Amino acid sequence: MIINGVMIDATFAEAFPMKATRAIITAQNLKWAYHSAQAMTGFATSIIGCGCEADIERELAPDETPDGRPGVAVLLFAMSSKGLARQVEIRASQCVLTAPTSALFAGITGSDIPLGKNLRFFGDGFQISKLINGCRYWRIPVMEGEFLVEEATGITTAIGGGNFFILAQSQTQALAACEAAVGAINKIPNVITPFPGGVARSGSKVGSKYKRLKASTNEAFCPTLKGQVSTKLSPEIESVMEIIIDGLSKEDIKKAMYAGISAACNLGAKNGISRISAGNYEGKLGSFHFHLQEIMK
Amino acid sequence: MIINGVMIDATFAEAFPMKATRAIITAQNLKWAYHSAQAMTGFATSIIGCGCEADIERELAPDETPDGRPGVAVLLFAMSSKGLARQVEIRASQCVLTAPTSALFAGITGSDIPLGKNLRFFGDGFQISKLINGCRYWRIPVMEGEFLVEEATGITTAIGGGNFFILAQSQTQALAACEAAVGAINKIPNVITPFPGGVARSGSKVGSKYKRLKASTNEAFCPTLKGQVSTKLSPEIESVMEIIIDGLSKEDIKKAMYAGISAACNLGAKNGISRISAGNYEGKLGSFHFHLQEIMK
Amino acid sequence: MIINGVMIDATFAEAFPMKATRAIITAQNLKWAYHSAQAMTGFATSIIGCGCEADIERELAPDETPDGRPGVAVLLFAMSSKGLARQVEIRASQCVLTAPTSALFAGITGSDIPLGKNLRFFGDGFQISKLINGCRYWRIPVMEGEFLVEEATGITTAIGGGNFFILAQSQTQALAACEAAVGAINKIPNVITPFPGGVARSGSKVGSKYKRLKASTNEAFCPTLKGQVSTKLSPEIESVMEIIIDGLSKEDIKKAMYAGISAACNLGAKNGISRISAGNYEGKLGSFHFHLQEIMK
Amino acid sequence: MIINGVMIDATFAEAFPMKATRAIITAQNLKWAYHSAQAMTGFATSIIGCGCEADIERELAPDETPDGRPGVAVLLFAMSSKGLARQVEIRASQCVLTAPTSALFAGITGSDIPLGKNLRFFGDGFQISKLINGCRYWRIPVMEGEFLVEEATGITTAIGGGNFFILAQSQTQALAACEAAVGAINKIPNVITPFPGGVARSGSKVGSKYKRLKASTNEAFCPTLKGQVSTKLSPEIESVMEIIIDGLSKEDIKKAMYAGISAACNLGAKNGISRISAGNYEGKLGSFHFHLQEIMK
Repeated sequence: MIINGVMIDATFAEAFPMKATRAIITAQNLKWAYHSAQAMTGFATSIIGCGCEADIERELAPDETPDGRPGVAVLLFAMSSKGLARQVEIRASQCVLTAPTSALFAGITGSDIPLGKNLRFFGDGFQISKLINGCRYWRIPVMEGEFLVEEATGITTAIGGGNFFILAQSQTQALAACEAAVGAINKIPNVITPFPGGVARSGSKVGSKYKRLKASTNEAFCPTLKGQVSTKLSPEIESVMEIIIDGLSKEDIKKAMYAGISAACNLGAKNGISRISAGNYEGKLGSFHFHLQEIMK
Repeated sequence: MIINGVMIDATFAEAFPMKATRAIITAQNLKWAYHSAQAMTGFATSIIGCGCEADIERELAPDETPDGRPGVAVLLFAMSSKGLARQVEIRASQCVLTAPTSALFAGITGSDIPLGKNLRFFGDGFQISKLINGCRYWRIPVMEGEFLVEEATGITTAIGGGNFFILAQSQTQALAACEAAVGAINKIPNVITPFPGGVARSGSKVGSKYKRLKASTNEAFCPTLKGQVSTKLSPEIESVMEIIIDGLSKEDIKKAMYAGISAACNLGAKNGISRISAGNYEGKLGSFHFHLQEIMK
Repeated sequence: MIINGVMIDATFAEAFPMKATRAIITAQNLKWAYHSAQAMTGFATSIIGCGCEADIERELAPDETPDGRPGVAVLLFAMSSKGLARQVEIRASQCVLTAPTSALFAGITGSDIPLGKNLRFFGDGFQISKLINGCRYWRIPVMEGEFLVEEATGITTAIGGGNFFILAQSQTQALAACEAAVGAINKIPNVITPFPGGVARSGSKVGSKYKRLKASTNEAFCPTLKGQVSTKLSPEIESVMEIIIDGLSKEDIKKAMYAGISAACNLGAKNGISRISAGNYEGKLGSFHFHLQEIMK
Repeated sequence: MIINGVMIDATFAEAFPMKATRAIITAQNLKWAYHSAQAMTGFATSIIGCGCEADIERELAPDETPDGRPGVAVLLFAMSSKGLARQVEIRASQCVLTAPTSALFAGITGSDIPLGKNLRFFGDGFQISKLINGCRYWRIPVMEGEFLVEEATGITTAIGGGNFFILAQSQTQALAACEAAVGAINKIPNVITPFPGGVARSGSKVGSKYKRLKASTNEAFCPTLKGQVSTKLSPEIESVMEIIIDGLSKEDIKKAMYAGISAACNLGAKNGISRISAGNYEGKLGSFHFHLQEIMK
């Protein structure tokens, strides 16, 4: 399959079940909602080292938020409900409770993931509970005024590790295609691209020659190793970057992959974009398979 | 002491010894250096819940970086050398190794904090070492090309918890003064303001009525509790925000406090800025005391 | 009428008929679409000195643009069709033709305002015409590749000078309310706020004691002149800022005024927002009257 | 001459004498200083259609500005003193006088270019003059409070049209090299790059086959015309972009060209950067010649 001169590999992205939640952070203005959300979703590129994968999902207008203020929605993903809850609580306490003018609300129906449920004790007995339309909110006195926080947010099954590779003839071209792809994916709801700027440049394989290391560089896709290993790169490929997508459903990830791959292909062969591929473990590990050529049909 | 109508309290900020390091992240352009640095220093507001306190220190021009590319310097602080090393390594592996086009260098003389020392094993035997002017660098093959990373960076004694409070007649005024103060502090080298946007709105006291909780809201500074507790706020104060400063030396923190307090006072009483105060434990816990009136002399 | 402690004056904004057009600028990525659009809509705050009033209306996803690339929509307003056409042509030639990777398309049905119609001659005979679905496009060879530009865009009747005043107890509070208001208005389609950051701080009256000057400071609303002139400000008002809205229809301006005033009132009296008023010439000059209390009902 | 695989042409940039001035815009915070400065320097890419060439020069810390607030320095260039004065006055009146919380100061010694000298009449007789250290300032009452503006700023001889071309194998690569170059030039004082994002993609030659047109596309550098005209491009070049630099002196432009060309060459041949060239009229028109190979020695 070829789109605008770009080869779409007959392969698939292999993805895994995760648990996810959404929270809504509002503030006096968008800038301060972003400050809080960026802190909360920082250092959250990969579940392995960060405890969760997280990012800002989208901006919210005042008429889309519970308190009529501007805000942002954040999505957080982890392997288990318990692990997710722990990450949400500690990140909310360090990055939202502390952030000037912010409030924190549920972004998914349900009450599995505590928001204010335990944070309220920071109020040292001065916190006040309000029940509005069946939802419990806490008003916690702080130096700046009050921190308004909903009791809990919901949890949902989700998918982590949707992905595709962009193979290009130079680093600048791979990066430009990634910028285009991430820009397009950012417009799709229910998904995030948790790596820095949405892009990962260090794809890994399972295992390593060093025993303690569970993952190491994916040498078959490393351009500088083309002469030394059994490579999957043709001679003209000099840079490969990966976009990893976590989403709430298969459909969401498919839409994001379609938007991202389309944007990369839009730059086309004339901009040195040679191939789109994807990362998988030959179907042995992940239960979700996203076939590139099906998605791009 | 009164500056532009703003009362400067006869009190002091109580701060603690920490360990700190600086690293330099370069990339193809500043935008991607920021992407990596923001991920690496995200979720790093307070040592208690985040493992370290970290932020971007400043932007670097191409002629200020080891590889002649644009970059940023980041500062990270922790209580112990070991704790700091662990945070730097895991954050570098998740947020710099993975970030497209980035390289990572020492920002302080010395080699106490591993950068590439262990990250190199990700290269699975294909990594290459270079010794230039006595510094060891690693070239680790990745899908995008190569990750260039220095062996290690230095460590230094440092100070955490420099701080001051801005007491204002409304939330919008306190926030405007904080924006001015953080803007001024951002121009000072060797310091960071680790909280979201540089500001903390939930100052805490040691202890709580709930046994398990080691810290809780500082009710004496909570405007909504003026009628219920022994308050430190006069009737017109309706919002208090805190700026917390970590720095490499006493002098650095003094300069930052001077710049920040000056900027807040510049807005003055006519903009509802009433008082500047600071957080301390009556001198019982922290070994560094920053007296506001001395600093502002 | 009082909203959250803020008095809504029983007055109206007086606005004028204008002509408007919309153009769409796409580029390799959003950043470069913004660079072009910001140049094109710069120095366009007021029709009096700038020749037109213009601003970015909103961001466009790849699936919303004619060439499937990311882009932004810009709106430009002038008093006459001829004046508008002249401004669009010169601004397109200086700021879009010149901007790397940009393309320029109609954003309103019609062909009254030339886009590529005359710009094409820059191609010096090498330009090529394409007719797609009844629309003519020009491909103009440039050093970077080709500038793709639609023949023309449409024109529509429009309204300039929708406005409201925010009266506050300090400058920082007025500014915070303006930021909130402009943030909310930015989410409304078909309108722009052409002044710097969306705000004007120098409201004017018709005429002056200096004969050559057609407009001068609106002293009845100047806080520093409360003691010297017949003021419209009560003693506690220390700062007044104005938000000026140009829109494609009465309904659009009403929606924008509602969103903006709501956001300002959301901060409320406790943040020093005292009154909302509006600018008019007692109905003598402008044919559109926007009554604040009707809009906020 | 070859740098990192990039050919440096044995040619020169031909530049012209201009007049320039610097002004300083301060505000309550950097964001609002930028809002004003971006409006003032918008639609100012080329002297031909915009009346002046202008851009933000650099950010200023509070201790670098006359009123101790954060600010930015802007540079404006025109062909004559009179033309420059007219542009500065109209742009200051539309974009700084109107911008909330802004103040406007001289950035160069001298008093040739009016700032407040005529703007003061907007005060309608209520303006107040202050003489501080031999400089006259005006306090003009406005709705927001007062507009503080210095009487005048200086003028200096300057140079417009310093330039270089980046020739690359694809559009994405040319753009990446331009981003790197503009990023590096932004760190150099006394210069601006007035085109959108600092880059021009539509280099022109003098004259056209259409009599009324004084300039048209530089077809010898148009990649799509390689087969039709006497081209200056070798077969692999598919995109050419130009960076135009205005500066206060020859030395400033040389430093900027060196920094920009170095940054582009840093990406190198492996990123498709093939050649650096420059625009000239064979020495017939401009009095300043910047030889690329001399600058890069």
